Amino acid sequence: MDKIFCGIDIGGTKCAVALVNEKGKILDKILTREHTGKSEERLVVLVVSLIRQLLRRNEIQESRLPGIGIGFAGHIRYRDGVVITTSNLHGFKNYPLRDAFQQHFSIPVILDNDTNAQAWGEHLFGTGRSMDDMVFLTVSTGIGAGIIINKKLYRGVTGTAGEFGHTIVEPESDLVCTCGNRGCLMAVASGLALPSLYKKKLQEGKKSTLSLPPDFDLSKIDGVILKNGLDTGDPLSREIILDCGYYMGVGIYNIFQALNPPLIVLGGGLTNWGDLYLEKIKSTFYELARDMIFDPIEIRISTIHGDAGLIGAAALPLE
Amino acid sequence: MDKIFCGIDIGGTKCAVALVNEKGKILDKILTREHTGKSEERLVVLVVSLIRQLLRRNEIQESRLPGIGIGFAGHIRYRDGVVITTSNLHGFKNYPLRDAFQQHFSIPVILDNDTNAQAWGEHLFGTGRSMDDMVFLTVSTGIGAGIIINKKLYRGVTGTAGEFGHTIVEPESDLVCTCGNRGCLMAVASGLALPSLYKKKLQEGKKSTLSLPPDFDLSKIDGVILKNGLDTGDPLSREIILDCGYYMGVGIYNIFQALNPPLIVLGGGLTNWGDLYLEKIKSTFYELARDMIFDPIEIRISTIHGDAGLIGAAALPLE
Repeated sequence: MDKIFCGIDIGGTKCAVALVNEKGKILDKILTREHTGKSEERLVVLVVSLIRQLLRRNEIQESRLPGIGIGFAGHIRYRDGVVITTSNLHGFKNYPLRDAFQQHFSIPVILDNDTNAQAWGEHLFGTGRSMDDMVFLTVSTGIGAGIIINKKLYRGVTGTAGEFGHTIVEPESDLVCTCGNRGCLMAVASGLALPSLYKKKLQEGKKSTLSLPPDFDLSKIDGVILKNGLDTGDPLSREIILDCGYYMGVGIYNIFQALNPPLIVLGGGLTNWGDLYLEKIKSTFYELARDMIFDPIEIRISTIHGDAGLIGAAALPLE
Repeated sequence: MDKIFCGIDIGGTKCAVALVNEKGKILDKILTREHTGKSEERLVVLVVSLIRQLLRRNEIQESRLPGIGIGFAGHIRYRDGVVITTSNLHGFKNYPLRDAFQQHFSIPVILDNDTNAQAWGEHLFGTGRSMDDMVFLTVSTGIGAGIIINKKLYRGVTGTAGEFGHTIVEPESDLVCTCGNRGCLMAVASGLALPSLYKKKLQEGKKSTLSLPPDFDLSKIDGVILKNGLDTGDPLSREIILDCGYYMGVGIYNIFQALNPPLIVLGGGLTNWGDLYLEKIKSTFYELARDMIFDPIEIRISTIHGDAGLIGAAALPLE
């Protein structure tokens, strides 16, 4: 009988529950947005009912699962299974989410950060297969990462290791992160930075050929809009994408010097910017690293990035 | 019978060979400077003769040792026991140093980077005792580090993990590192940076009360001179020490976000700057980390920093 896993991915807008086979293929999935705005307890009740529904309609007994894995978008104290804080959902301050789920099941429940789940998914089923060590980096509204060392997630003392998005690469930058610091990687190279970068370049007198409505709120500039700009020849969109690529190259160089991994996998929405972006990341990295690279290091785009978090969460009991 | 270990620390100016007991105490030691300027082969012959001498005069059979550990100041490909390159001694380009020693002994020889050996020494016998995870950071002419994860050294694919000295914290800095890049931590906060920082501040019109000879070569400004300046009330020395402390605080913050370790131990000559320096490091770190610290993190000065490398090298067979 094939092994079956159950994974949950709880994000700020979407919540997904899935059954996954041992090859990392999703067998069945339920997606909801009803979890937002709910209290912690009601969110748990909702998700448990979705899991039961999924098991029932696939005629799978709970006892056939090795466990249930949850990836949650927030800071997790891994050893206690507690959500310390999240900026993606209301509440969840020091909330014991693992135990809240555990009381509904007789199989083990494992709670981890959503980016760690993605890294684990990439390691088991994606670009990082067969690699003992790797770093997975996701670049979308923010920047997060998961570190695989010796075929296991490295989490640090709390469980927040891999917060490369908050490492500072430009201390006197005028770009400020949600954390309040200036010039962390996230502040200069993630979706967060895009409105500020766009406005700043306009103020410098640069021209954009993006066709935005006249009353368009520039704080809504995002990766999709700039991708459209890039595709339609807007020089400003191109410049911002190259700026972000430059800082990601610096960030990846810093990860290289810190951890000397053989592989860095990039996921997240901004990787849709494509070759220009990836080439800028790589060229910046190689210019900085030059003759300090003694063994090959690969920088690759995730092959399963849409569902890596869900698949990785499901596979957490395998760690 | 007590366990006895043999360690070798090969640096750019000094080479030490020692017998160490299982508590990390040095039982006997030979120090030489004759290794500099020698060919790789002659250096090995010299050091092997020192080891033999040490064993003979302590009446210890080679077979009583679990192995011989070598810490070498350079880039090491750990799995092959090869010195890839070093800026501290002539030669040693892709030199198989471990095998060159191994052919003289029937017990295993282990070769690692000198900073990794120091980190291992701190972990086993120093400030990092009882910690599963820690980062050891040495700040002297350059900046190096060793990472302990799950009670073992984490080396990365080549063996060069922990090069936080080369992580970039100020990409547009006018301070250039020996590696050629601008604004790596080493370029702005290590001994390397001191002459440039001193000259720059003089050019900005700042006054120093250091009593240097009129023809003093300012490229010789070092940590000891500035410590003297600090102790005698020189405002320029104080300012440079605070600048270096600030960037070390940023560097340590970045390590915190990357690895979430419970302990960071500082060693190396610049830690002799004392409380003002350490307090600046800590205050910078805590200002940046604020409410992102969820479990205690200690930043402490090495308690065995003089000999940590030698003791750690000796204990490498215990890893």
